[in-house]
Amino acid sequence: METYFIEERDLQNLITGASFLGTGGGGDPYIGGLMLKRELEIVKKIEVVTGMKYSNSKSFVLGSAMMGAPIVMIEKIPNSSEAKKALEVYSKFTDNEVEYITPLEMGGVNSTIPLITSAKTGIPVVDGDGMGRAFPELQMTTFYFYGVQPSPIVIFDERGNVSIVQGIDGYWSEKIARIITVRYGGSAYIALYGTSLPTYLNTAVLGTLSLALEIGKLLNQMRLDDLLDLLKAIIMFKGKVVDVQRRVERGFSKGNVIIDGIENYSEKTMKIDFQNEFLVARINNDIVTTVPDLITVLDLFTLKPITTDRIKYGQKVMVIGIPSSGKLRTKEALRYVGPRAFGYDVDFIPLEERWKKVEN
Amino acid sequence: METYFIEERDLQNLITGASFLGTGGGGDPYIGGLMLKRELEIVKKIEVVTGMKYSNSKSFVLGSAMMGAPIVMIEKIPNSSEAKKALEVYSKFTDNEVEYITPLEMGGVNSTIPLITSAKTGIPVVDGDGMGRAFPELQMTTFYFYGVQPSPIVIFDERGNVSIVQGIDGYWSEKIARIITVRYGGSAYIALYGTSLPTYLNTAVLGTLSLALEIGKLLNQMRLDDLLDLLKAIIMFKGKVVDVQRRVERGFSKGNVIIDGIENYSEKTMKIDFQNEFLVARINNDIVTTVPDLITVLDLFTLKPITTDRIKYGQKVMVIGIPSSGKLRTKEALRYVGPRAFGYDVDFIPLEERWKKVEN
Repeated sequence: METYFIEERDLQNLITGASFLGTGGGGDPYIGGLMLKRELEIVKKIEVVTGMKYSNSKSFVLGSAMMGAPIVMIEKIPNSSEAKKALEVYSKFTDNEVEYITPLEMGGVNSTIPLITSAKTGIPVVDGDGMGRAFPELQMTTFYFYGVQPSPIVIFDERGNVSIVQGIDGYWSEKIARIITVRYGGSAYIALYGTSLPTYLNTAVLGTLSLALEIGKLLNQMRLDDLLDLLKAIIMFKGKVVDVQRRVERGFSKGNVIIDGIENYSEKTMKIDFQNEFLVARINNDIVTTVPDLITVLDLFTLKPITTDRIKYGQKVMVIGIPSSGKLRTKEALRYVGPRAFGYDVDFIPLEERWKKVEN
Repeated sequence: METYFIEERDLQNLITGASFLGTGGGGDPYIGGLMLKRELEIVKKIEVVTGMKYSNSKSFVLGSAMMGAPIVMIEKIPNSSEAKKALEVYSKFTDNEVEYITPLEMGGVNSTIPLITSAKTGIPVVDGDGMGRAFPELQMTTFYFYGVQPSPIVIFDERGNVSIVQGIDGYWSEKIARIITVRYGGSAYIALYGTSLPTYLNTAVLGTLSLALEIGKLLNQMRLDDLLDLLKAIIMFKGKVVDVQRRVERGFSKGNVIIDGIENYSEKTMKIDFQNEFLVARINNDIVTTVPDLITVLDLFTLKPITTDRIKYGQKVMVIGIPSSGKLRTKEALRYVGPRAFGYDVDFIPLEERWKKVEN
């Protein structure tokens, strides 16, 4: 077990890396960055615990996140003291002293919320999360796939309303917490997925906070080749966005993007479906990547990640495919985050296997 | 402090009396009666504590009720063990031993739910409630008007989902609990309005369970004059229902009933507006009664109370006006349950004063 500290100088890398791993979703990381900057001006540094593979301690780990539509968060910058209050209510309700805070997802605004909670409480953040990317729903975490319930979930709003949800399973917990968030006005702070440190280490995707920082550093230094090496990632496409279809369905932003190829990809067309995050990429109607593997769209020139909310006609982009964590590729995990979980009648085939075929 | 027991032979009177005090709303008391009958077959009798005016004990009183659309309760007869579980979660969450159970409203299904909870737990029911009638929303109780918060509210469904709501005020508690109930599928068991016995006795409408039994007895024996004497009630109208307008709005059953007068009331027309319960009665466009005073519609021949869900064209009815409890007629109470709280631009004038004018 080692520790390091996140300081203000790391912010830009963290935001860029979280945005990359957000695969188009997870909310605007710049809002989270703004909130975190305010905290770092006070506390100067936030402790991250890393390098743990195994523990037999009885320490308790708790997830910290925001729930709700990213667009609402942009409209009203949240007062981050509610993240602390949610943790306190959780701790009192379950009679657990929280010793580590974990992100649920490494992507978008929820990469920074746990750091804010840490700044407010002095409790260190553990280097890992439950997705290794962003996903739209609470039950879509490796914690849940491997036996940890999201409940109890403490749901706090900026007025001071608190709800505690104890759903019978991950789906019910998600449904109830979601409707409460809607009633609150569209966004809420949540504390959830409390578990022991040994269970956490068995179920989490580890090292992802460090990974986000490293990705951010490489992208900000325009070191694309090093980034591809680090992630075993593939440039899948380069082109110009020629159409974006977008609609809001059950609180999710759904749609697709059409990209006409340029350079080596001319004469080809890529279509990417999304539901908050990019889900499935096709070239000329052949699927080339699906969830849970990551599809990330970068600006062709600046290499800045582009979210599904902001992608638009005329942008020149590069589309990257990244193999997801092994913990997302098991039978247990694919039931919740494989293509079928999002309504596609296809099996998951790992990115690297699909691309052997594409390249032949 | 005295106690008496409710047994199976009291059921019919309780149901009739609760239906009368429900003023057209509160859900179908026959469903509650059926559930209670099942419990009484096992426990034989349920203890009611009555006659308390003042106490300095530290005993804890907790409200027990169902929330949701009455129509849903009719479709799926609830498994009443959830009422007990809601109480247990409340007790553990607040670290209070519950010594008395109270109804929130004396009207419809919620008159019997606390008795079922008592049968399941052995905890006695206290003879009182928070309305002395039925109202559609959780904050519309004398408990709330005089300083007791509904929160925390434990909300249990038949699958085992549990939520705990701690709203910043009665309105927020109602809004959040309501949306959770909708997400559960339309009905839920709730435990709420926990308070000390002295505070309960200061804020509740006392004696209403006994009153419901007495009203039921008189009605079932067709002793209308004795009933009017007991309640200082007035026969406001007799006639035939000639029109019913009904719509569902924000989960409430809203509408009005038109009644053409017969006997002494011929040549006159009564119109009654309702929102779950009857709210405002007019004769020839002049208001003759408003909330919080009670407007109850009886079948002209059987004297059985008719709910707003079941009133229909052609029924011959008698409309009774009953003065509400003094605790509903204060400035504090009228803010929440006076005619203005339901969108009418008129002041509350007590029934007995309005009728002095009508009779002159």
